Amino acid sequence: MRTEKDLLGEKQVPKQAYYGVHTLRAVENFPLSGCKVHTKLIQAIGLVKQAAAEVNSELGYLTKEKGQAIAGAAAEVAAGNWGDQFLVDALQGGAGTSTNMNVNEVVANRAIELLGGQKGDYRIVHPLNDVNMHQSTNDVYPTAMRIAAIWLLKPLSEKCAKLQEALQDKEAEFAGIIKVGRTELQDAVPIMLGQEFSAYAGAIARDRWRLYKVEERLRQINLGGTAVGTGINANPKYIYMVNDRIRQYAGIGLARAENMIDVTQNADVFVEVSGLLKALAVNLGKISHDLRLMSSGPKSGFGEIRLPERQAGSSIMPGKVNPIIPEAVNQVAFQVMASDMAIAMAAQSGQLELNPFMPLIAHHLLASLSILTNGVIILTDYCIKGLTAERERCLELLHNSQVSVTALAPHIGYDMASELAKKAKNEGLSVAEAALAMNLLSPDRLDAILDPKAMTKPGIAGGKTK
Amino acid sequence: MRTEKDLLGEKQVPKQAYYGVHTLRAVENFPLSGCKVHTKLIQAIGLVKQAAAEVNSELGYLTKEKGQAIAGAAAEVAAGNWGDQFLVDALQGGAGTSTNMNVNEVVANRAIELLGGQKGDYRIVHPLNDVNMHQSTNDVYPTAMRIAAIWLLKPLSEKCAKLQEALQDKEAEFAGIIKVGRTELQDAVPIMLGQEFSAYAGAIARDRWRLYKVEERLRQINLGGTAVGTGINANPKYIYMVNDRIRQYAGIGLARAENMIDVTQNADVFVEVSGLLKALAVNLGKISHDLRLMSSGPKSGFGEIRLPERQAGSSIMPGKVNPIIPEAVNQVAFQVMASDMAIAMAAQSGQLELNPFMPLIAHHLLASLSILTNGVIILTDYCIKGLTAERERCLELLHNSQVSVTALAPHIGYDMASELAKKAKNEGLSVAEAALAMNLLSPDRLDAILDPKAMTKPGIAGGKTK
Amino acid sequence: MRTEKDLLGEKQVPKQAYYGVHTLRAVENFPLSGCKVHTKLIQAIGLVKQAAAEVNSELGYLTKEKGQAIAGAAAEVAAGNWGDQFLVDALQGGAGTSTNMNVNEVVANRAIELLGGQKGDYRIVHPLNDVNMHQSTNDVYPTAMRIAAIWLLKPLSEKCAKLQEALQDKEAEFAGIIKVGRTELQDAVPIMLGQEFSAYAGAIARDRWRLYKVEERLRQINLGGTAVGTGINANPKYIYMVNDRIRQYAGIGLARAENMIDVTQNADVFVEVSGLLKALAVNLGKISHDLRLMSSGPKSGFGEIRLPERQAGSSIMPGKVNPIIPEAVNQVAFQVMASDMAIAMAAQSGQLELNPFMPLIAHHLLASLSILTNGVIILTDYCIKGLTAERERCLELLHNSQVSVTALAPHIGYDMASELAKKAKNEGLSVAEAALAMNLLSPDRLDAILDPKAMTKPGIAGGKTK
Amino acid sequence: MRTEKDLLGEKQVPKQAYYGVHTLRAVENFPLSGCKVHTKLIQAIGLVKQAAAEVNSELGYLTKEKGQAIAGAAAEVAAGNWGDQFLVDALQGGAGTSTNMNVNEVVANRAIELLGGQKGDYRIVHPLNDVNMHQSTNDVYPTAMRIAAIWLLKPLSEKCAKLQEALQDKEAEFAGIIKVGRTELQDAVPIMLGQEFSAYAGAIARDRWRLYKVEERLRQINLGGTAVGTGINANPKYIYMVNDRIRQYAGIGLARAENMIDVTQNADVFVEVSGLLKALAVNLGKISHDLRLMSSGPKSGFGEIRLPERQAGSSIMPGKVNPIIPEAVNQVAFQVMASDMAIAMAAQSGQLELNPFMPLIAHHLLASLSILTNGVIILTDYCIKGLTAERERCLELLHNSQVSVTALAPHIGYDMASELAKKAKNEGLSVAEAALAMNLLSPDRLDAILDPKAMTKPGIAGGKTK
Repeated sequence: MRTEKDLLGEKQVPKQAYYGVHTLRAVENFPLSGCKVHTKLIQAIGLVKQAAAEVNSELGYLTKEKGQAIAGAAAEVAAGNWGDQFLVDALQGGAGTSTNMNVNEVVANRAIELLGGQKGDYRIVHPLNDVNMHQSTNDVYPTAMRIAAIWLLKPLSEKCAKLQEALQDKEAEFAGIIKVGRTELQDAVPIMLGQEFSAYAGAIARDRWRLYKVEERLRQINLGGTAVGTGINANPKYIYMVNDRIRQYAGIGLARAENMIDVTQNADVFVEVSGLLKALAVNLGKISHDLRLMSSGPKSGFGEIRLPERQAGSSIMPGKVNPIIPEAVNQVAFQVMASDMAIAMAAQSGQLELNPFMPLIAHHLLASLSILTNGVIILTDYCIKGLTAERERCLELLHNSQVSVTALAPHIGYDMASELAKKAKNEGLSVAEAALAMNLLSPDRLDAILDPKAMTKPGIAGGKTK
Repeated sequence: MRTEKDLLGEKQVPKQAYYGVHTLRAVENFPLSGCKVHTKLIQAIGLVKQAAAEVNSELGYLTKEKGQAIAGAAAEVAAGNWGDQFLVDALQGGAGTSTNMNVNEVVANRAIELLGGQKGDYRIVHPLNDVNMHQSTNDVYPTAMRIAAIWLLKPLSEKCAKLQEALQDKEAEFAGIIKVGRTELQDAVPIMLGQEFSAYAGAIARDRWRLYKVEERLRQINLGGTAVGTGINANPKYIYMVNDRIRQYAGIGLARAENMIDVTQNADVFVEVSGLLKALAVNLGKISHDLRLMSSGPKSGFGEIRLPERQAGSSIMPGKVNPIIPEAVNQVAFQVMASDMAIAMAAQSGQLELNPFMPLIAHHLLASLSILTNGVIILTDYCIKGLTAERERCLELLHNSQVSVTALAPHIGYDMASELAKKAKNEGLSVAEAALAMNLLSPDRLDAILDPKAMTKPGIAGGKTK
Repeated sequence: MRTEKDLLGEKQVPKQAYYGVHTLRAVENFPLSGCKVHTKLIQAIGLVKQAAAEVNSELGYLTKEKGQAIAGAAAEVAAGNWGDQFLVDALQGGAGTSTNMNVNEVVANRAIELLGGQKGDYRIVHPLNDVNMHQSTNDVYPTAMRIAAIWLLKPLSEKCAKLQEALQDKEAEFAGIIKVGRTELQDAVPIMLGQEFSAYAGAIARDRWRLYKVEERLRQINLGGTAVGTGINANPKYIYMVNDRIRQYAGIGLARAENMIDVTQNADVFVEVSGLLKALAVNLGKISHDLRLMSSGPKSGFGEIRLPERQAGSSIMPGKVNPIIPEAVNQVAFQVMASDMAIAMAAQSGQLELNPFMPLIAHHLLASLSILTNGVIILTDYCIKGLTAERERCLELLHNSQVSVTALAPHIGYDMASELAKKAKNEGLSVAEAALAMNLLSPDRLDAILDPKAMTKPGIAGGKTK
Repeated sequence: MRTEKDLLGEKQVPKQAYYGVHTLRAVENFPLSGCKVHTKLIQAIGLVKQAAAEVNSELGYLTKEKGQAIAGAAAEVAAGNWGDQFLVDALQGGAGTSTNMNVNEVVANRAIELLGGQKGDYRIVHPLNDVNMHQSTNDVYPTAMRIAAIWLLKPLSEKCAKLQEALQDKEAEFAGIIKVGRTELQDAVPIMLGQEFSAYAGAIARDRWRLYKVEERLRQINLGGTAVGTGINANPKYIYMVNDRIRQYAGIGLARAENMIDVTQNADVFVEVSGLLKALAVNLGKISHDLRLMSSGPKSGFGEIRLPERQAGSSIMPGKVNPIIPEAVNQVAFQVMASDMAIAMAAQSGQLELNPFMPLIAHHLLASLSILTNGVIILTDYCIKGLTAERERCLELLHNSQVSVTALAPHIGYDMASELAKKAKNEGLSVAEAALAMNLLSPDRLDAILDPKAMTKPGIAGGKTK
């Protein structure tokens, strides 16, 4: 154990720990969710520390040696090292100060170590005066949130591309499989199974475009704005250089916000991003519901497709295979929708120069990004790719249905077609049989009109007699 | 036009209007949602005014004549009269002050009229000094919210009783209809259609119990607490008497809260009530989803039940009948769930001695009560009551399925039963056929075990060989 | 009364009514919310009917005379006439069919009237065969939703521009008013009141950009896709021409979606739009919270600004003026956030070829657009424009605070500055006094460093001694 | 490594692992949230397994030896052992099957070990045939959810009692501290600081009552209902005995539901419970907002109370102490509110005989219980207990304000009092000074009326002149 000190007094810190007294205070204060801060957020803060240390060194605020040590230590954090030293709970008061302090302490102690000192000897490298120099939680934390979010957007976007591709493969594979199209769960008109997958692919394509656009929105950062965005205690040269450096290192087109006061206090951009993620969640949810419906049965349900078997489905019903992957993805969707609400509530509760609820926003936003990525992966790899069509079943259901009656309406009028549909339903006739029985059209005309494949394309089947 | 005056200056009021300058200010300030304040809330405020006027008259604060006129005018409002005089938007700033002022003005002018005066001559009856005497919006409004909510709970509760009854009728009617039970939309084990309706009835029974309990929670009122619950400007005798009077008139077991400061500022009771309404919404939503599923098709879906036809379903597809009532009820459920979120957000945003967002809470809570009542009515009368079973279809689906395999597991073990299920599925055999083919049990034993009706009750079909 | 007939039988319709039997069925089926369908949605459907009738006439599907009558009647609806004939409740089952039917009937009967016939004589003009020709609710309704939403976006966008302008005016007006900046409600560092308003303006500027972008997203329509997006019963020429016509008439850059099946069934675009509206709601909410905070008191609160007086604040406390406009806007924000949740729930519950919950989505989306517009107007006109600064109060609070200690940290180190802050707080000293008492810096240096105005800009006040 | 086999084929399992192939499948299928299943849920499932094994042994379905081994192993799990063997993600498809399987496997292998066998040798003890005997995930999992929830309710309830006590201590401590009461953040009427804390205590008292009531609602279990609640494959004697046993062991008044089909498929009880937790969250949120407001400043804000210092507040502003505990609790409230929405969405999405989204419900419900407990603890111990009043500041703000004008209204009328308030505000006079200047009342009467302490109790200060 070593002794550290802060405003509130002394505290014992494990001798080998890279974290220090501020971290321990936070651990004590926030034993809340049991969830740790997202690793990407920690890494992004590390990157900010590295950039700041380098610039401060170049500007002469830090000796070259110290600057190098800090930058080196921070680079390690940015690379994902020392993960077990970040102890603070994801839910925390203080607008992220505890997370920033935790990184400051780990970087300081690691830098001290690199410089040959003893951990805790902050005369060598000070977590605040040196590591946090020219920074405030209030510019570091939102900047890192944006970087982390963009980092997580990339894989999500890539995985969505793969999902779209898998859906399009199915679109092609199922292009010729005709089936009943259903509106409001009622037999409606013929459609191709491939067309249904094209609709899913279309929705995911929009999501990709959204994710791409979202990234732009996150690039405005307030690094150098310090406490409230005015830039107090930050040399203008430093502000210019550190933004340049972080842009370069993060590799994601960051730009200093014109109005750093605005960007320091307003969290609407995270609401926007989360809202777009929710649109993706909604699409994933809708697709998953559909997959469960279409694979329902297999005998007493729709049974139009078969999902890959991923595990035994039941502890009591042998042989039962459940649509566990879509079920999991539905829950991912619910989760992301709920997180979106958490983010919005937190964002609109910001007050004056700062939003103290940034940790909640960060937690839910980054979790949504991660869980969506994971959900898209399992949906693609464990469900869509191996999904097969039950072509015969599709055809059988189509033939038993009366969906072709719609094609008759342009020829015999809506009201007469309604009569026909009623008769067919009540007497158990096919549409053609009922039409013949009612003497509405000649068998030839009926043949020409009642071509299900023609009904899956624009146009009036059988041409329209005017 | 007549001229009225307030803190901000003069304003022209239509000569025949019972409302006055404060109402017009509010109309000008809050042109927001286009929704009016719920009539029940207006009526409940009227009742409070009546009780207060009578007590104030009895205590000598108002002359007998004036007291009588105010009480009479207020009683008219409580009875639902003068509805077109309540102009303020449901969404309004000011914690309900504008609604309270609107009632004060209408009651005052009506009382003036009853006393033979000219509307607007507030020397005869003053909206604040007389009608609002010993009151504040901050005790009148939350008290009236509770009364209005309890008033709306009664019909909701009654309609739920009718829904439960209708479901139980179907439980009885469908008691002998055996069908496939499905878990995760996959064929599971046999169940009676009547049992399914018993589950719906059970859920609604819980809701009724909840609605009953909710009422209790709403009975604690803060009338007499005035501005912040301390009772400033209200004679203790008045407080005692007015609570007694309102309890008597409202007829719903109201009681003065022990801590009126608490009840003035905290809105958690409305959150609680809304949360319980949400549980009802969830049950209605679940039932509606199921009804749509079970009636899906009719040919290419489950087709196990048939919903009453309520209107032509499609503008393009003749003869199509859609499950419009459950669809509407699903939307009622979504609406109530969203309102619950609005209520919670508003409730937790109260500050210090008052919650300024009470109008939003009132609006959503009372709307939820009304819309749930309406939803329950249409579900009962337009859907459940006329719903019929497709007994043959249920049986056919059951026979085609392999759900009886579960009954074999206790006899041949889970793993062997899994093999059997696989074989049956792959080779298109029935469970019995596959079992015989695998030589697992004698035909007699199989007959004894594979009795679907037995599978809908507790017990190991065919007895268990140990 | 006249008699009309549908699938379910006969029904009496008021003789003068333009609506017909389908409308009455819907009124009977959906006595739910008491809210009518948004007028803009009705108008947009009218516009679609007009375009379709013209094209159908040009293609020879309708006689010139009939086509002209229908187009003329539809144009009247599009212009906002016959508003009292649209009776269906905003909440309704059937994916919008009832609303579409209502318009079909009103247009048909009005066209019949224009042609000299008797209302109800559908041999002259038929609501389905003629008015709805080549259409389905499933392409008409989502198309109209998009048009209505874009129509409502324009005024919202303009009003946001005015709000931004008003905020920028205040930014300029308050540019020289220095005050305490607060983070986490605690005294932090100096800031200009004008800078605070610049942050609000910045947030609203982002919203304007979002609203602009949103419009783009709504322009993809599925008109001509009919029942499920395949275009069954719609002549390809018609599809091409009707999209061209509606683009021209609506004047908002509409374009036929490449994949109409996708656009028919997926509602993610509305989720996206609502999500962006929610970002605006969050900004309005945050600004309103701040305005209420900064104007709190006036004596026992922050009292830094004064809001325009809009009405007497209390029915019991004379002279009290409340921040009713921001309070109303806060409720607008809660409302929009709740509606966003309703929209997302409904959108993710779509099934297969259609989302039956479109009416709920339409209701909440269009209501959000309207209520946001109204909220922005009152915030701008009734609050921001007339808001004044309490310059003396700002200065007094600043001088009493210890916020300048941060400027000392770069000179004396964080730990020593903490000691100094502690001493100043405990002994009731100013920062300068405490610094002198601790003998940390010379009076001259202190003067140079402790310049509040300098602290509102980037840089280390007093230069940094290295 | 050892080889295990399931429906899908063989899989390698680490030799020392107590879990088996089903667990590994689930780990592979659901790499989603990174959160593990709540330990209390695992323990509760363990308890169910223990009860079932004992009963099955007593009924002769398991040999005494085997029954003892399984019951012993399950008891270890129930006691919280083998925690590192429960690998499945909290978010999972399959309605909880994977979690049930995970427990089955751990119990089986531990029982095998106790019986001297090799892990994986399921001939000795079989996870399904033996450990899961007479059970289904669909009765085990919801039963365990209820038990776990009740277990977590106890500490939450106790901690709320402590919070209420701490608030009441402050109520007593601050009973004599008079201050400005504020409505809508504007100076309203005098109040005692102690009265404010009594309102908080009152709200928490309601929450305790709710938590107590909630417990009742959770006691109805469906153990023995097996797959869909019909009790297929479960001997009636077993059902009776196992419910008796689990009631005894869990010690929380469990009772078998009358309608197990209902309880198997409906999740409304969890919605109800979560709704009540949300009411607590709302109260905690409101209290926390107030604490942050009242401690704002300390110099340029309200500054009426001082919160205990828990950590250095800022990485850039020395000496700054932030209200981090209330901030954290506000985030707890947001989190619980969002989880409530997740639970409701999942609950209303159940289909037919089962709700496949139970894992999401379990995850959010149990997390809400835990995080609320933790939030209540830190609020009580780290904030309320050590909170102090700034008596002088309270008095000073009261004296500077004009809140006593309300007490004059009953004596001089509302309109005159408004004039007075206006004059006082505009001319910077005290209420008494303005009243004298306007010659409204004699100095003696004014003295009698303007007694702030009298204004904190019911009654008309100074008596009322009629």
